[in-house]
Amino acid sequence: MKVLAIDTSNRPLSIAVLDGEKVLATTTMTTQRKHAAYAMQIVEKLVKLAKLQPEDLDRIVVADGPGSYTGLRVAVTIGKVLADTLQIELVSVSSLLTLALNVQKEGQLVMPLFDARNDILFTGLYRTSANGPIEVIPDQHVAFDDFVTQVKQYDEPIVFLGEDVDKYADRLQTIFGNHFKKMVGIDNLPQAAQLGIYGEKQLPLTDIDSLVPKYLRLTQAEADWQKLHPGEGHKSYVEQV
Amino acid sequence: MKVLAIDTSNRPLSIAVLDGEKVLATTTMTTQRKHAAYAMQIVEKLVKLAKLQPEDLDRIVVADGPGSYTGLRVAVTIGKVLADTLQIELVSVSSLLTLALNVQKEGQLVMPLFDARNDILFTGLYRTSANGPIEVIPDQHVAFDDFVTQVKQYDEPIVFLGEDVDKYADRLQTIFGNHFKKMVGIDNLPQAAQLGIYGEKQLPLTDIDSLVPKYLRLTQAEADWQKLHPGEGHKSYVEQV
Repeated sequence: MKVLAIDTSNRPLSIAVLDGEKVLATTTMTTQRKHAAYAMQIVEKLVKLAKLQPEDLDRIVVADGPGSYTGLRVAVTIGKVLADTLQIELVSVSSLLTLALNVQKEGQLVMPLFDARNDILFTGLYRTSANGPIEVIPDQHVAFDDFVTQVKQYDEPIVFLGEDVDKYADRLQTIFGNHFKKMVGIDNLPQAAQLGIYGEKQLPLTDIDSLVPKYLRLTQAEADWQKLHPGEGHKSYVEQV
Repeated sequence: MKVLAIDTSNRPLSIAVLDGEKVLATTTMTTQRKHAAYAMQIVEKLVKLAKLQPEDLDRIVVADGPGSYTGLRVAVTIGKVLADTLQIELVSVSSLLTLALNVQKEGQLVMPLFDARNDILFTGLYRTSANGPIEVIPDQHVAFDDFVTQVKQYDEPIVFLGEDVDKYADRLQTIFGNHFKKMVGIDNLPQAAQLGIYGEKQLPLTDIDSLVPKYLRLTQAEADWQKLHPGEGHKSYVEQV
């Protein structure tokens, strides 16, 4: 199966073209903020380097959040448009789980995280397995202290993953002591090559029309709208507007 | 330190630009055989994506062999020309050791290998450590059976690495049983991002003028020349001609 995998959830951008478990071509970078300007260009370049035509692709795998509002829309939009145009399969995977795919050791607790400012994280807790990371605590938008208190109850080593770990490293080190583990280099970045291999085996497929980024928090517009429409409960802002 | 790392030793091509342990931009691909045509183009593209000028680079790290005759010359030549032109540091690293950098577990025996046809391998045995892979049996051009007999004496799990492992997987599985371990996807390919992080800390620097690829076997031309000049012992063919 030929797979195109895309993660633009946060500052790192990673795109890969695979044939089964074989990586044909992949690029990962951390320096550009304008994913909208680069992502499609890199997709085209990599498909070409992989000696494929877009029509050769069988499935697209995208990291669908949590992450930056704009970044998530880039991957999700490219995924939806290409899957729809090429009439191929689409699968979406948590962008936190994507980071956890970097850990080779099985049975390892992993806490991938993205900084959401003001001591708030996008994070979740996973345990690695032969079939990929298994959710222990679901992905959420949560205060650093609250989540760390929950995680501290697991009295075992934890690998903290993601570019933003450095911002919290001193505090995590103090709280977790010898159980605090981190990674460097490419192992600390989302790798679309790993996302593609994982996503290739995932079912069910994602419905192309109903896929939306998993922001895991309200945008300001949604929050404002909900304030003005208190009776409407949890109905989606997008569906209403 | 800004580092450009290049591995074109075999079919996979991997190039990365790093700032310390931070990966700025990297591309890895397995589909093109014409490394000479693509490598410099990808170097330029990645330096640009990393938002650097070539003059910003402090060090170049190249995988210098063993591997394909033409492939090795691409990385070594680019390394020498850029290091000389930009007046920056050059470090060369074994392309087998480069593969071993993919293994996260410390204390693990690793046998990276490249197929040299006719049941002959380029291979070596390493043990991973916090400071990188440590040589257990030196890189060599050796008959599969001979090398495997040596390695079999270590009665412990061994990770076999490289695209060519698949060609030998059945035999290795039979010989090593449960001790046979392998990796898939990006973990089974040389990653210049890992090479760069490792090479950044290496000393001594490589002398730009005297760096030559480590073929680890005679080319046909060298073999012919040695036959015609039996008295000249181990003097280099290149130095003589």
